[in-house]
Amino acid sequence: MEVMQVLHMNKGEGETSYAKNSIVQRKIISVATSIIEKAVEECLEKNFLDSMGIADLGCSSGPNSLMVISDIIDTVYATSNRKGIPLPELRVSLNDLPGNDFNNIFISLPEFYSQLKMEKNIGPEGCFISGVPGSFYGRLFPKKSLHFIHSSSSLHWLSQVPRLLDSNILKPLNKGNIYISKTSPGSVIDAYLSQFKRDFSVFLKSRSEEMVVDGHMVLSFMGRVSADPSSEESCMQWELLAQALMSMALEGLIEEEKIDSFNAPYYAPSAQEVRSVVEEEGSFTINCLEAFEIEWDGGAPSNNNFQKHIDKIEKDNFSRGQQVAKTIRAVVESMLEVHFGRKIIDELFKRYAQVVGDYFSRTSAKNIDLVISLTKKG
Amino acid sequence: MEVMQVLHMNKGEGETSYAKNSIVQRKIISVATSIIEKAVEECLEKNFLDSMGIADLGCSSGPNSLMVISDIIDTVYATSNRKGIPLPELRVSLNDLPGNDFNNIFISLPEFYSQLKMEKNIGPEGCFISGVPGSFYGRLFPKKSLHFIHSSSSLHWLSQVPRLLDSNILKPLNKGNIYISKTSPGSVIDAYLSQFKRDFSVFLKSRSEEMVVDGHMVLSFMGRVSADPSSEESCMQWELLAQALMSMALEGLIEEEKIDSFNAPYYAPSAQEVRSVVEEEGSFTINCLEAFEIEWDGGAPSNNNFQKHIDKIEKDNFSRGQQVAKTIRAVVESMLEVHFGRKIIDELFKRYAQVVGDYFSRTSAKNIDLVISLTKKG
Repeated sequence: MEVMQVLHMNKGEGETSYAKNSIVQRKIISVATSIIEKAVEECLEKNFLDSMGIADLGCSSGPNSLMVISDIIDTVYATSNRKGIPLPELRVSLNDLPGNDFNNIFISLPEFYSQLKMEKNIGPEGCFISGVPGSFYGRLFPKKSLHFIHSSSSLHWLSQVPRLLDSNILKPLNKGNIYISKTSPGSVIDAYLSQFKRDFSVFLKSRSEEMVVDGHMVLSFMGRVSADPSSEESCMQWELLAQALMSMALEGLIEEEKIDSFNAPYYAPSAQEVRSVVEEEGSFTINCLEAFEIEWDGGAPSNNNFQKHIDKIEKDNFSRGQQVAKTIRAVVESMLEVHFGRKIIDELFKRYAQVVGDYFSRTSAKNIDLVISLTKKG
Repeated sequence: MEVMQVLHMNKGEGETSYAKNSIVQRKIISVATSIIEKAVEECLEKNFLDSMGIADLGCSSGPNSLMVISDIIDTVYATSNRKGIPLPELRVSLNDLPGNDFNNIFISLPEFYSQLKMEKNIGPEGCFISGVPGSFYGRLFPKKSLHFIHSSSSLHWLSQVPRLLDSNILKPLNKGNIYISKTSPGSVIDAYLSQFKRDFSVFLKSRSEEMVVDGHMVLSFMGRVSADPSSEESCMQWELLAQALMSMALEGLIEEEKIDSFNAPYYAPSAQEVRSVVEEEGSFTINCLEAFEIEWDGGAPSNNNFQKHIDKIEKDNFSRGQQVAKTIRAVVESMLEVHFGRKIIDELFKRYAQVVGDYFSRTSAKNIDLVISLTKKG
């Protein structure tokens, strides 16, 4: 399975679109806001910038894409004002895989530019937004062109399913699972960790070539606090999806071999694993590395704007299960469809909503979001 | 009518898509190839470039979008090799209005990059392609960031319908016409020319801020050789479209008032009009300004690659009419649909194919493509 070709958030603005089902990712962005602000400020404190290169990696589509950029511009604007220096020319790049719905972002740019003009008097000579399609596991931008890089809810996606798992189709190593689970053999866990290390290291190396010295980078992605890669906090969403798939296999709706041969191109690293890759790769200093608990359905609001969306979420377990199923569907449908076919999707997520709802009745389901802030070394 | 919102080539890959109906525009690009090559060479002759900014304005979607870029990269590659200098880092920007089908271009980028690697050993650190949505009648790129700009089949589109025509809805000035025609009053012709002058001047000013000194620009667009703005060579395609519309009005299928209130945001300038705007604006030197005749259906092939496509075009007038109708439909459908509604479109272009076919039987129908090569002054 070529991740580059099959991984994209659901397009458009419909019922199952990512645009309509990305409240959790929005929550994750808002959790990192103060860390992003601090990093942007430090970027500007250290340098007098005439022109500032900013990139969001894994921008996706829908309201979140431009919200991040808006937050970053707000901070650059406020910091420049406070320091009494002119606002730098802003060169903003939005990156995602080539299958991302860039049209959806682009169509809302004229309104975004109008607001910039109205609210901050930033005219068309002050801010340039472009789309950069490609994998961030490799070069994306000209050398030394960026001052600030942001990425949210993206780096847990690997560049590929670990080769070991993809190459044992006749004798599946990870039987009955679609990601690491308690029943996964050590070789599967090792293969996932190796793939993460290799990918994240390539990511850091690529970015180090694109960034100026003292450039800042804030990355947030799914991870774990536990040292155990099969801990509930990092595996349970996949585990429950596997359960939903298996229940369909039991009824003959899916071939069990299909489930055995599917493995998610995903890894939720521990803070320590992240730290050690950064240190080994050597291009960046770690400013901070924090872990946040995120409830599966977006959970407790952190500010009032967010409240409006959260208020709509019914608090009973059934509807929370449905909410989570929609969120996950908007993210993984493209991948599952390629492997299992389109016709099982509706039924699969109906069952998934059910098992997630049941899970909510037993425990308070949470993911761990890791946020790391880095500075490019001299 | 907001041109920014309603003008885009037909999306996707279907029967009426621009991707499938842009042979004429391809012909126009190929006509300018030697001029483009010369300009790119001069760009590299004058400067030692470590990093080269290249932009295509009005890139549209479909095969033409990346073909232009491929041609430009070929020339940069050949020139660098001949001079024995390293290939500069290539920063390529593809621009069009925000409603353009950028997704269609982006999805074919991985293959484009693979070919670059295979054919020229240009790796991911050597070429960076981005999409820049926005109107070229205004700033699009950071200051002094571009060395070569290309635009083909785009600058005949105005930023808006001349205000005078849009503001006289109750007493239409250009009755029975949708562009300049023999029956248009002088005030209509003057309004079109003024709008062109204003737009093209803003275009040049914007580009002059984005380009380095000695940067080169090659622009090609519909124009005319005749001094008369109502000459057949520049008006007949619109005139015949108006005839097709009027025939539907006669049968009560369209309200005549609808036709009276529609005016194309288009102008085909004379070489002299183009020259005088460039000279007045003052940022650029004209290297050459040439006029080429282009048959409405793409006409005589200029090379063998092109021959393959042209061979498919039946030479009888009926099918030539159909071919032209498809070409024009892929370009103007979005605009007509907003004004006249979706349901008249199929019938309109059936009739248009007919009147164009009849026209072919009376004369050899040709447009004039103007190509101008410019250098940014010091």
